[in-house]
Amino acid sequence: MASVALVQGASRGLGLEFCRNILINKATGAVIATCRNPAKATELMSLASQHPGKVTVLKLDVTREDDIKDAADHVKRVFGKLDLIINSSAMLHPSGKGETSLRDVSAQGIISTLTTNTVGPLVMAKYFAPLLQKGSGAFGRQPPEKARQHSGIIVNITAKVGSIGDNDLGGWYSYRMSKAALNMATRNLSIELGRSRPLVLCVSVHPGTVNTDLSRPYHRNVPKDKLFSPAHSVQCLMNIVDSLNVDKTGKAYSWDGSELPW
Amino acid sequence: MASVALVQGASRGLGLEFCRNILINKATGAVIATCRNPAKATELMSLASQHPGKVTVLKLDVTREDDIKDAADHVKRVFGKLDLIINSSAMLHPSGKGETSLRDVSAQGIISTLTTNTVGPLVMAKYFAPLLQKGSGAFGRQPPEKARQHSGIIVNITAKVGSIGDNDLGGWYSYRMSKAALNMATRNLSIELGRSRPLVLCVSVHPGTVNTDLSRPYHRNVPKDKLFSPAHSVQCLMNIVDSLNVDKTGKAYSWDGSELPW
Ligand SMILES: NC(=O)c1ccc[n+]([C@@H]2O[C@H](COP(=O)([O-])OP(=O)(O)OC[C@H]3O[C@@H](n4cnc5c(N)ncnc54)[C@H](OP(=O)(O)O)[C@@H]3O)[C@@H](O)[C@H]2O)c1
Ligand SMILES: NC(=O)c1ccc[n+]([C@@H]2O[C@H](COP(=O)([O-])OP(=O)(O)OC[C@H]3O[C@@H](n4cnc5c(N)ncnc54)[C@H](OP(=O)(O)O)[C@@H]3O)[C@@H](O)[C@H]2O)c1
Repeated sequence: MASVALVQGASRGLGLEFCRNILINKATGAVIATCRNPAKATELMSLASQHPGKVTVLKLDVTREDDIKDAADHVKRVFGKLDLIINSSAMLHPSGKGETSLRDVSAQGIISTLTTNTVGPLVMAKYFAPLLQKGSGAFGRQPPEKARQHSGIIVNITAKVGSIGDNDLGGWYSYRMSKAALNMATRNLSIELGRSRPLVLCVSVHPGTVNTDLSRPYHRNVPKDKLFSPAHSVQCLMNIVDSLNVDKTGKAYSWDGSELPW
Repeated sequence: MASVALVQGASRGLGLEFCRNILINKATGAVIATCRNPAKATELMSLASQHPGKVTVLKLDVTREDDIKDAADHVKRVFGKLDLIINSSAMLHPSGKGETSLRDVSAQGIISTLTTNTVGPLVMAKYFAPLLQKGSGAFGRQPPEKARQHSGIIVNITAKVGSIGDNDLGGWYSYRMSKAALNMATRNLSIELGRSRPLVLCVSVHPGTVNTDLSRPYHRNVPKDKLFSPAHSVQCLMNIVDSLNVDKTGKAYSWDGSELPW
């Protein structure tokens, strides 16, 4: 059966690029692109029109459990299965910049960052897990033994700064905490969805520092060869996705395939 | 100057026991005990009356930034400094039980758990850090070199199940995620407050499985010798606090002093 992939947070940046990459590399498959404001997602709409019949754009604000439930109902009705979810939406902080010190910390800022970056992807998993369990394993590398094959994959986009063990700099309280908690969600999902059959894999991946709106306030501090294009970063991450199997679930990987510490 | 310690979440369980322990072991010091409903905290009130003039009970709901700010203003006015904060308040989940599977996960449940267990302690640090920087270093073990001595200590009560690397069982999504994010807050605080002088230390500690209301639904699964009394657990944790210095900041410790993986 043709592949069905869902990209959550597809209006811009890496999410948009994941749609583009999958449309090229899985030419017979379908892409479901979700974003909170389809009417304003002009690049996504133009990409969809370049691939007629391949892209379903759904309105989904990841902070709204109802939107997630409605999208899952739609995918169930139309496709009946799912092979891959990429959770890409996130923010540094509602202000657009990470906190440089405790002075910038506010309860409201952290809660809002956690709601989008952490709670959203987990609630996605809740509603889409049953569809991933009906997936046909179109992504990843299937081992020969039937019992070790997977039906679907969840990819949560994390960040290296979300690694507690790697943190020597501090700052960016909300964002760091949101990604550390997301990594725990990944780990928990890999265990729960790895226990039953059909098997669903779950990993966190770090895209490198990528030329998108999210990192824009910091671009001038990044050496040019360290600032990836979205196309390069997504190709690296899809190489990781292509290599996934049951032995690789429940971990965090950097764009080059190396494992990140928790 | 006599010690000033603040215990946040002092109405019951470990928080109440921390107050009791400190009152006995720092007989000349002051204890500020905060809880969200002093009128209902009968055991705390009776402890306070057994130690006249030593205990200040303040109303503080850790999910309310205004309460935290008001408490910090009060401590500043009355004591002008702080040597130790213990952040003890937490919940497993608003339902009182951790999620056993994805089916039990709800956005509202996670957000509410994160708000109490994670955001609360960080907002405490924001408002009390200036007072801890005025502390006289009455807790911990001071090294001889002046430049390496600390003025104050923040202790965040974490949980072993909040360790991502140690997680082989899954479940308890909200609680696990809240403690992983709290550990990131601890790490970040240790860096920011370790950079300037006076020095403030910050650690996470795991109390073991303790006979309190929080763990009550699970007591029947715990072998008797593995279920600590609050008094035993708090004594172990205060032994860790007594041993803290600049070399030990920014880490997570179990009740026996061993380091927990992130
Ligand atoms: N760029 C980097 O250097 C970098 C580094 C490490 C990790 N990452 C991670 O990579 C992922 C993608 O980031 P990016 O660089 O592509 O960021 P971006 O260009 O700023 O895009 C962020 C995306 O998130 C969406 N979004 C925000 N809040 C949302 C909500 N409530 N519901 C649905 N969508 C929402 C945005 O949609 P709207 O268009 O509606 O605002 C947008 O599509 C994120 O998880 C980020 O943390 C990025
Ligand atoms: N017990 C264990 O086995 C165990 C194991 C690992 C970690 N821990 C950790 O140890 C710490 C203490 O837990 P415990 O066992 O003593 O739990 P507990 O007996 O259930 O006490 C929880 C405390 O948190 C307070 N609290 C809850 N929400 C609050 C809020 N919004 N504002 C202020 N206070 C609030 C409660 O106050 P009210 O009286 O007002 O409800 C109560 O004082 C927690 O961080 C917990 O995660 C416990």
